[in-house]
Amino acid sequence: MSTFIYKADPARGQEWAKVFARERADVDFRIWPDIGDPAQVRYLAAWEPPEDIAQRFPNLQVVFSTGAGVDQFNLKSVPEHMPLVRMIEPGIVEGMVEYAVFSVLALHRDMPAYRRQQAQSNWSPIQVRLAQERRVGVLGLGSLGQAVLARLRSFGFDCAGWSRSQRSIDGVTCYAGQAELNAFLARTDILLCLLPLTDETRGMLDARLFNALPRGAGLVHAGRGQQLNHADLLAALDSGQIGDAILDVTHPEPLPADNPLWRHPRVWITPHIASMTRPDTAAMAVLDNMRRHENGEPVIGLVDRAKGY
Amino acid sequence: MSTFIYKADPARGQEWAKVFARERADVDFRIWPDIGDPAQVRYLAAWEPPEDIAQRFPNLQVVFSTGAGVDQFNLKSVPEHMPLVRMIEPGIVEGMVEYAVFSVLALHRDMPAYRRQQAQSNWSPIQVRLAQERRVGVLGLGSLGQAVLARLRSFGFDCAGWSRSQRSIDGVTCYAGQAELNAFLARTDILLCLLPLTDETRGMLDARLFNALPRGAGLVHAGRGQQLNHADLLAALDSGQIGDAILDVTHPEPLPADNPLWRHPRVWITPHIASMTRPDTAAMAVLDNMRRHENGEPVIGLVDRAKGY
Repeated sequence: MSTFIYKADPARGQEWAKVFARERADVDFRIWPDIGDPAQVRYLAAWEPPEDIAQRFPNLQVVFSTGAGVDQFNLKSVPEHMPLVRMIEPGIVEGMVEYAVFSVLALHRDMPAYRRQQAQSNWSPIQVRLAQERRVGVLGLGSLGQAVLARLRSFGFDCAGWSRSQRSIDGVTCYAGQAELNAFLARTDILLCLLPLTDETRGMLDARLFNALPRGAGLVHAGRGQQLNHADLLAALDSGQIGDAILDVTHPEPLPADNPLWRHPRVWITPHIASMTRPDTAAMAVLDNMRRHENGEPVIGLVDRAKGY
Repeated sequence: MSTFIYKADPARGQEWAKVFARERADVDFRIWPDIGDPAQVRYLAAWEPPEDIAQRFPNLQVVFSTGAGVDQFNLKSVPEHMPLVRMIEPGIVEGMVEYAVFSVLALHRDMPAYRRQQAQSNWSPIQVRLAQERRVGVLGLGSLGQAVLARLRSFGFDCAGWSRSQRSIDGVTCYAGQAELNAFLARTDILLCLLPLTDETRGMLDARLFNALPRGAGLVHAGRGQQLNHADLLAALDSGQIGDAILDVTHPEPLPADNPLWRHPRVWITPHIASMTRPDTAAMAVLDNMRRHENGEPVIGLVDRAKGY
């Protein structure tokens, strides 16, 4: 019997265990640190895997991340030949679509301004702009970015996207690479960051990027905290270069209580809740990838080691 | 030459004038009080029409409301035989869809709670529920309600609707009449009011209705202010019967600065901006209805005098 080791939040692990018991009684599902016989371990799903994977589990075949990204992984700890798989499941995708649409509509419809007006008992309508007159730009065109853009398009927003390599998405103006980043930013009224954390994207949301946006642009950040330069954002908000910011990720997390972002009147903060894996749908996605692996089919969400995501 | 009189915000009237000049050079478009020869007046578009319409304009054929509702009209001032037409135009519909989706997502994703947590520098994730587990209910199934439900369905919400008379809408559980109101409320986690103001809906959002909802339900009110009993809402918020409320309409408007709704921590107020007519698209909708009238076809948005909307 092959063993599947789950190494993340134990309460969620119990939900995975129920799904495995129902769907794959032939697999010995175990929650870390109860690993059983290491030689039997074929699969590992982890938020942060142990460092000595290859030595500890000589017959390990596939490593799954329990999160959408693998930036919390030490990629060197996973042998080069071993498939490393990101989490792509309906809970993550739909959660991000909801958060992105909520945030873009909030900025489009001046909701931060109305919350400030409410604090002053001030009833002052702001002229509405049509969605087709609002240019939304998404940084990152993977499975999350594409799902978000499809839903935003249903509202009629003028949509564009930017990614590392050229993409083609129906109804979306696609920009690619450093050479086209400034042109993408110059046409973007509301910028939504969904990029994975890599050496190239670390610190990318900085003064230079903010200054390439139209004055007063809105920012929604649902990528990773280390992509955002806090000091540059505060300066851009204070100068009016950025109108309002909605942040789901910060660095560090939790955001310390004395961090000035908490109290900035033009910042809305949520505690990294844009998109959470659902234990039940996440376990089903992993089971689907296990079947693919066993049948020699390509798994969904295979990490490209060179790109880092 | 027939005359068209516009009696509403003059700045918006200038936008209408441009559209009329381009589309119907054969019509003499005039902005109140510059009415020209009263005997030439065939059409009147007004937010609040004058009281003596029939005497003042003996050859008047159609009255248009410049708003989605006609509750601001004295219906008795418009002769029974004369078509009275509500405004149905893309600006109103899309604006309401945006506001409704923003508000439902805000309540679904606990955004009011996160705004309160931010004021305390408190980083505390709240478990996400899937949209399919969230029961959204829309009061009012006219053109606005149907458009809103179609967009909400794209997120996977468990959708129901209630209206005065029975409707059938794909993917939406429809309830009708007083007899089915309680059953509709009992299954509704987030209630969205889009009803027209009539004698039957005046004061309808009261303690009795709130108590028929599941405890902690959310309220989004984008109907008319006179439908909402402020005191009952404040009591329901304080008891926890209503979790959070997002209000776009109040009575009176503007909401006086000393009204306690402004300062309630579980209330978000916007100043009647959910849906605004766009002068350009509104004028086009009226021109389309003028052509229909002239060709003997049914106009879109004809008011039923017995129902009052």
